[in-house]
Amino acid sequence: MKDLRVAVLGVGLIGGSIGLGARSRADAHVAGYDPNGDALSLAIERGAIDEACASVADAVTGADVVFAAAPVGALPALVDDALAAAPPDCVVSDVGSTKQALVEAVSDPRFVGGHPLAGAETAGVEHAREDLFDGAVWYLVPGSYTAERSIMRVSELTQWLGAKPASADAATHDRLMACVSHLPHVIANVLVGVAGRALLDAGKESGPLVFDVGPSFRDATRVAGANTTIWTDIYMSNRAALMEAIDEAHERLRKVQAMLQASDAEALRQWGYDAESTREALRAISRASGS
Amino acid sequence: MKDLRVAVLGVGLIGGSIGLGARSRADAHVAGYDPNGDALSLAIERGAIDEACASVADAVTGADVVFAAAPVGALPALVDDALAAAPPDCVVSDVGSTKQALVEAVSDPRFVGGHPLAGAETAGVEHAREDLFDGAVWYLVPGSYTAERSIMRVSELTQWLGAKPASADAATHDRLMACVSHLPHVIANVLVGVAGRALLDAGKESGPLVFDVGPSFRDATRVAGANTTIWTDIYMSNRAALMEAIDEAHERLRKVQAMLQASDAEALRQWGYDAESTREALRAISRASGS
Repeated sequence: MKDLRVAVLGVGLIGGSIGLGARSRADAHVAGYDPNGDALSLAIERGAIDEACASVADAVTGADVVFAAAPVGALPALVDDALAAAPPDCVVSDVGSTKQALVEAVSDPRFVGGHPLAGAETAGVEHAREDLFDGAVWYLVPGSYTAERSIMRVSELTQWLGAKPASADAATHDRLMACVSHLPHVIANVLVGVAGRALLDAGKESGPLVFDVGPSFRDATRVAGANTTIWTDIYMSNRAALMEAIDEAHERLRKVQAMLQASDAEALRQWGYDAESTREALRAISRASGS
Repeated sequence: MKDLRVAVLGVGLIGGSIGLGARSRADAHVAGYDPNGDALSLAIERGAIDEACASVADAVTGADVVFAAAPVGALPALVDDALAAAPPDCVVSDVGSTKQALVEAVSDPRFVGGHPLAGAETAGVEHAREDLFDGAVWYLVPGSYTAERSIMRVSELTQWLGAKPASADAATHDRLMACVSHLPHVIANVLVGVAGRALLDAGKESGPLVFDVGPSFRDATRVAGANTTIWTDIYMSNRAALMEAIDEAHERLRKVQAMLQASDAEALRQWGYDAESTREALRAISRASGS
């Protein structure tokens, strides 16, 4: 029997990649559970799990570390089920994109919230990769009940998976994610909507269009409309912070409009230089974080 | 003496790439002019032009085709100078990102506006490439005085450069560009601003941050703060259409906020699916245009 026993609840892209990495890099035995039987079969086939389990309780029995890797909306109930069935010395974490609601809902020292910054663009165990987390920041977000030991244990495993664990409090994490992830996703959909209407109008006037969106649009809208079910969940779970981020986007757009209205080239120029230096500062933080 | 004589006014990324392509693919003699002597020397060194000229008049003397490849704000005067000195059977075009102001300002049958959809992210002849336009849509935008012959001639040359010429009227072109290019650039700066403030606030509260922006943010902000001088010009030259596009972005953001405010998951989901199908429709148009 292998030393380390990992359970993965939900074998999609993230759960599957945890399974692949835990098996090959931590020599762990990985038990998997997923309500979708096809995903579970595919996870076995791809070598992401050693064992397909018929229930959460089956998967977590005897586990050392459990990762709940389901859509954000399903996490509170899933984590509860896992904690109810997991051994007393087991630790339980999750990989959800928002943390405050979950972390506040769980009052068990064995639980620590988690969020690896990886893999947002695709979904499904068919895209799972052992190296998905290589070099990625993996936030660990304790609640007020979380034991130090739980943080240590999950932190260790994320490092075996190639990630760089970093601690964050739930509110800060969710506010940051609203700004650097959820707002860009919202904006991608908005940009696609604006361009779609403009092209439709132009096509009505002038017939079939010859058109190419160009790299800036393609980059800005790469995630538009992707994984709608997952993202609806994420937006809903981070409503307050996301609404605030959208407010700030409104305000900044209004300032640009005022500069345009006033034909104030100097202000636009200064605004461009500010963006350049802020972007450089963000890159410096990312680099200092090792990515 | 070579058969085809091309003049490039402004030897930056676009002008330099036209020079490289015209020389190697159309076996043209390329005369270059640039107010920046260093750029001109580098253009010679890189083989982007055969001849460095001391003035616009020198460069266009004897030319068959002239490309004005300067920042948008400098184009009206530059095109005027070129037309004043160019031979009667010469054709003159430009590569500016907005077209209406320029095309309305020029009343010469030898002139047709142009805009290759390529190369927005970098600048300078040091990044010029012979294949920059391969497969790119190159809009040709006639004014009311433009002769059919001028369109044909420029169209032919853009094809030699590897591009796919497409005609568009100036107003439609500028409205489309506001939506698919200028708005995404504005938004990139806005996203960087929102994220920068959030990180700065978080850093103040909790000390040095471990942080990685992740691929969606990186993609959405790749162009933030880039080439500020060029982009200020572009924004200024397309103020009205850009303000309209920003208005529409405001409106779409407000709708999302209302869904979030109402916790309307079903509406958010529908909105996500709409974005997915619109994105697919945009890609289909791009594919049909051959890119």
